[in-house]
Amino acid sequence: MQSFDVWMKSTQAEMEAALLRHLPPADRVPARLHEAMQYAVLDGGKRVRPLLVHAAGALFDADAAELARAAAAVEMIHTYSLVHDDMPCMDDDALRRGKPTVHVKYDEACALLVGDALQSQAFEILSSGNLAAERQLAMVRLLAQASGSYGMCGGQAIDLASVGLQLSLEELEQMHRLKTGALLRASVLLGALAGKALNEDETAALDAYAAAIGLAFQVVDDVLDATADSATLGKTAGKDAADNKPTYVSILGLEQSRALAEKLRADAHRALQAFGDKAQRLREIADLIVQRKA
Amino acid sequence: MQSFDVWMKSTQAEMEAALLRHLPPADRVPARLHEAMQYAVLDGGKRVRPLLVHAAGALFDADAAELARAAAAVEMIHTYSLVHDDMPCMDDDALRRGKPTVHVKYDEACALLVGDALQSQAFEILSSGNLAAERQLAMVRLLAQASGSYGMCGGQAIDLASVGLQLSLEELEQMHRLKTGALLRASVLLGALAGKALNEDETAALDAYAAAIGLAFQVVDDVLDATADSATLGKTAGKDAADNKPTYVSILGLEQSRALAEKLRADAHRALQAFGDKAQRLREIADLIVQRKA
Repeated sequence: MQSFDVWMKSTQAEMEAALLRHLPPADRVPARLHEAMQYAVLDGGKRVRPLLVHAAGALFDADAAELARAAAAVEMIHTYSLVHDDMPCMDDDALRRGKPTVHVKYDEACALLVGDALQSQAFEILSSGNLAAERQLAMVRLLAQASGSYGMCGGQAIDLASVGLQLSLEELEQMHRLKTGALLRASVLLGALAGKALNEDETAALDAYAAAIGLAFQVVDDVLDATADSATLGKTAGKDAADNKPTYVSILGLEQSRALAEKLRADAHRALQAFGDKAQRLREIADLIVQRKA
Repeated sequence: MQSFDVWMKSTQAEMEAALLRHLPPADRVPARLHEAMQYAVLDGGKRVRPLLVHAAGALFDADAAELARAAAAVEMIHTYSLVHDDMPCMDDDALRRGKPTVHVKYDEACALLVGDALQSQAFEILSSGNLAAERQLAMVRLLAQASGSYGMCGGQAIDLASVGLQLSLEELEQMHRLKTGALLRASVLLGALAGKALNEDETAALDAYAAAIGLAFQVVDDVLDATADSATLGKTAGKDAADNKPTYVSILGLEQSRALAEKLRADAHRALQAFGDKAQRLREIADLIVQRKA
């Protein structure tokens, strides 16, 4: 078996090609919009969600092209949310993945449309898959639920409403379960569904894994935001604290936050026990999420 | 057969109930987002796209609940585009359907999220339908294509880029074919597809009908924008001219624009010949679009 690092780098490289393939060409009308969509999506990003799609697909030997399709769809949803979140009326951030954000590089109206069009593109890609129609449709529904008001958008709304408030740990957890957790869960389930229809036990195990890494992802994000510098992160460090947003570090402190991340990593591993060796990549991604430096 | 007016009013009333049914309850968390989604979607609007879905469904006796579902999905895409278009970075409009726009009533961040969540909601609704999975999936794909960069979003991008430019009639037509035409076409095809899979002749006839009414819709919009007052329109009149946007009236003049709308109405009727009596509602909608006063 390849080392995780080799697998990750080759999957990321394949993903870059898949994303380009699944985006409209930059020279087709409306060219400026298409160019800006490519600017937002391509070149950079750790591609955590696509890695999850591929790692979960490995559980059931899913077809590579269908995994790339599902991964591209999820990554476009994720990217659209970043583009919109960075806009002046939301987080007003000028730097993302080490590059000027879309509304800075282009303009606000363009950023708004880039996000809107990327969301449509995600559903177009996923609904154009070649899996059994019932299963493909279930995947579209799953992605839509994870993206909407009971998923990512809802989490974002709770996040906005919580600025300056003293959230409890439970409230903070609920916010992140929606804001980032829902799409991470969708990534895992989409990858598995690209392989086969899931039974209840499989769904429950993958849900438990996804819940653990989703939370771990956010805890580590908060730790890094409090400890790393902007150059390492590729985005403005210390921003959440400066914006008076509640974080795990502000509630639990640094040491307890690190301990929580480590506990969640163990939870994620435990959830995968029934899958044996085929879950190796999913385990390694849990490790990556907790041990990353940026 | 009911008169058109009775049919339209009862369909609009049923549509209001269907939209409410297909939106998240306003008391569910995140409540402010859900309340704002309802504010944006409910109470007002001519529901032209839902009327088209139902009228096209009548061609093939489609199931009423599946038509309501498709109509709700299209209307949510349409509404999200209005919410985003009204934002300060786009058209900066304070009045819509006679009410304060979402970013005025709530705030900009909320308006951004309302639009984003409505788009997800549209795809969730449509992917939850009960038609044969192949056909349901084709409907999702159709709506995604009509919404994205080769459809509505693309038209919006061309529109933004054309402010202050002298467009040719062909360029103006292309812009509107994407900006409003694509979703009107999707409405017609979704309604028909809710009834049965379409053959080539049927698709071509409905395409011709949709192209004619799509263009007519915009020509009449421009005529009304130049001649009606804000109270009648329920939005700010004369805004396109004031914003220096190219319109049919600015290119063709008022009389030729009215003649073009009348010609397109005849084209729409001709396209429906093969469908006989079952196309009565589609014919009446073409008449409505051309003869409306707001």
